[in-house]
Amino acid sequence: MITREECEALDAADPLAAFRKEFSLPEGIVYLDGNSLGALPVRTPERVREVVEAEWGRELIRSWNDAGWFEQPYRLGGRIAPMIGAGDGEVVVCDTTSVNLFKVLAAALRLRPGRRTVLGDGAAFPTDLYIAEGVTGLFDGTRSVLLPSPRELAGHLDDQVAAVVLSHVDYRTGELLDMAAITAQVQAAGALMIWDVCHSAGALPVELGSCGADFAVGCTYKYLNGGPGSPAFLYVAGRHQAAAEQPLSGWFGHARPFSFEPGYAPTDGIGRFLTSSPSLLGQAALGASLDVWERADLNAVRAKSLSLTDLFITLVEPLDVEVATPREHARRGSQVALRHPDGYPVVQALIERGVIGDFRAPDLMRFGFTPLYLSYAQVWDAAGQLAEVLESGEWREERFGRRGAVT
Amino acid sequence: MITREECEALDAADPLAAFRKEFSLPEGIVYLDGNSLGALPVRTPERVREVVEAEWGRELIRSWNDAGWFEQPYRLGGRIAPMIGAGDGEVVVCDTTSVNLFKVLAAALRLRPGRRTVLGDGAAFPTDLYIAEGVTGLFDGTRSVLLPSPRELAGHLDDQVAAVVLSHVDYRTGELLDMAAITAQVQAAGALMIWDVCHSAGALPVELGSCGADFAVGCTYKYLNGGPGSPAFLYVAGRHQAAAEQPLSGWFGHARPFSFEPGYAPTDGIGRFLTSSPSLLGQAALGASLDVWERADLNAVRAKSLSLTDLFITLVEPLDVEVATPREHARRGSQVALRHPDGYPVVQALIERGVIGDFRAPDLMRFGFTPLYLSYAQVWDAAGQLAEVLESGEWREERFGRRGAVT
Repeated sequence: MITREECEALDAADPLAAFRKEFSLPEGIVYLDGNSLGALPVRTPERVREVVEAEWGRELIRSWNDAGWFEQPYRLGGRIAPMIGAGDGEVVVCDTTSVNLFKVLAAALRLRPGRRTVLGDGAAFPTDLYIAEGVTGLFDGTRSVLLPSPRELAGHLDDQVAAVVLSHVDYRTGELLDMAAITAQVQAAGALMIWDVCHSAGALPVELGSCGADFAVGCTYKYLNGGPGSPAFLYVAGRHQAAAEQPLSGWFGHARPFSFEPGYAPTDGIGRFLTSSPSLLGQAALGASLDVWERADLNAVRAKSLSLTDLFITLVEPLDVEVATPREHARRGSQVALRHPDGYPVVQALIERGVIGDFRAPDLMRFGFTPLYLSYAQVWDAAGQLAEVLESGEWREERFGRRGAVT
Repeated sequence: MITREECEALDAADPLAAFRKEFSLPEGIVYLDGNSLGALPVRTPERVREVVEAEWGRELIRSWNDAGWFEQPYRLGGRIAPMIGAGDGEVVVCDTTSVNLFKVLAAALRLRPGRRTVLGDGAAFPTDLYIAEGVTGLFDGTRSVLLPSPRELAGHLDDQVAAVVLSHVDYRTGELLDMAAITAQVQAAGALMIWDVCHSAGALPVELGSCGADFAVGCTYKYLNGGPGSPAFLYVAGRHQAAAEQPLSGWFGHARPFSFEPGYAPTDGIGRFLTSSPSLLGQAALGASLDVWERADLNAVRAKSLSLTDLFITLVEPLDVEVATPREHARRGSQVALRHPDGYPVVQALIERGVIGDFRAPDLMRFGFTPLYLSYAQVWDAAGQLAEVLESGEWREERFGRRGAVT
């Protein structure tokens, strides 16, 4: 079995080790929940303070022009674009993942007017399914159909399918889908492919462009470290932008927002997917995080992510848990999910020991691996704590909550 | 004519004078653009820092429960409710004004299924019109009709009208509409009344409840001082909540968000108008501002607002401008708009002199009056500067931009 000393040697040789000091994390904690809320970059508080005190407080309304507030959705989008394989003018930062999915789904249905079905994965993070339900409820005769699993796609991909929405990485098991193959399969059936990259943006190099994806949405508060409730992004392939129309047609998407015309006329390009004033504080925090990301090589991030998850899987495999995450690298995101019938109290006991993961009903313990601020030694420690919790049976104590509890 | 000394005496007797020190404003500036972006409350930076460094940085994911992040949309909504005449459980803070208008308009159309028209004011802030266009584009057979003016309402209010959307205060002229009378008129025709209170929330006591309003939306970055791009709010009268359904049906509006069910089931009450994760940084800043507002008597705010705008109108009336804002108190919000054919360069020259207002094409100079941080003496100074700019003709200088320019 691998020793802690071997992990320390891996850390000493880690090309990403220097990034650890770019993040502010409490002492004594192994944070394995960066797939839910990423850690705070050390320079973020100062950047947010600057926007609050100088741009807002001192410059006031002038900052819309002088501090580039109007341009922020485009600028931040342009900085995220290379991380997800998108080109210039294909990404904007705005609103939330759910709101953005609404926009791109409505646009997709309009681009495929004869078709009546939106296919989703019944096991996806539910807000995607709820939004698909909301959008199809507005288009007469359309409906949202849920697959039991993405593997059932072929059987449902008929000439009635307008669009398919899938998560690049399953939020529970951490399974990574084959973006290129699925996109090709969906498009071969005449449908449009919409990817939810919430759990892959910043976790691995996403290749929306070379995979030919039509649309994508994602959040920035997980692997991208934008902060709680930070603004989301959306991607629209350049080839669709001229024809794509979305119904959240607010003034930020207008061709001439300051001519205050009574009729809506969408601007050219990705800007037509904007709706209204950006959240400048949230965008400031995201900008500070992207300053860090711009210096990180995503291929190195992916390599370390796979090493960390390999290490964790190797260390926990002998324990009384079932590894729900695929072993195959090509099918693994940047988290490891372990099944245990009493996963809820086990996770609570781990948290008390300073190892922060989370739980998803009915039996999944989730552990996210964020290569910029996680060391091999910490992974070793986390696996050791899990072994102790399971062996000691301490999770059976009343204070950790009941078996099968839902968080 | 009133003297500066008389204004200073008014300031000395001003019951709201102590609020001035609650806001951080640059020296030497008279800020008359709080109707566009409100000033920074002095305690906001510290509160934002706390959320960034402690709640996010140190407590991380635990803050969703421990710091009450999940409850924020309801808590902040509950704090705004008394300022707009709403009851408990009738207001939530979320998303943007445009997105929230989309939600309530879609809900209104569903509550009036046989009716095919949404009436708006063609002179309203255009995002409201664009969103009405976007929503009606999704409901077969419905259309958005623009009134030349709210005064033309009666002639268009037939049995095909599902909903009417009007701004409580006109964003250009500052004209205040009679909320009670118009709401009654609209409802007598069987339609639903949606108020946009962006320019009245925090400017005067808004009485949505006693006026019987059906829905309302508003922003928090103007008179409410929530900061640039701070989250918006929406109001749904309690009587509509059980039947109202909106299509931006994300997981935050679900009855059981953490059971991760594949089908959408809206929660009871106002929560069904939530969509997704709140912007915690934006909400933190708004919370700090509401701490100030909670100590302010809105009737005193309204009284001072009318005194300030009376004073300004009196002082500028002799100048070479046309006052576009109604003199009648019952028809005036908290801004004064002045027409001048070269309004754009005049405003630029004023800004150079430290008096910050703004311009709306073709000829409107807008000046917002925010009683919590504006003094009578400052209003006197602003009027004096305007007189000097107009008399000197300095606005004709090339550097202030061309006549009729659009900002």
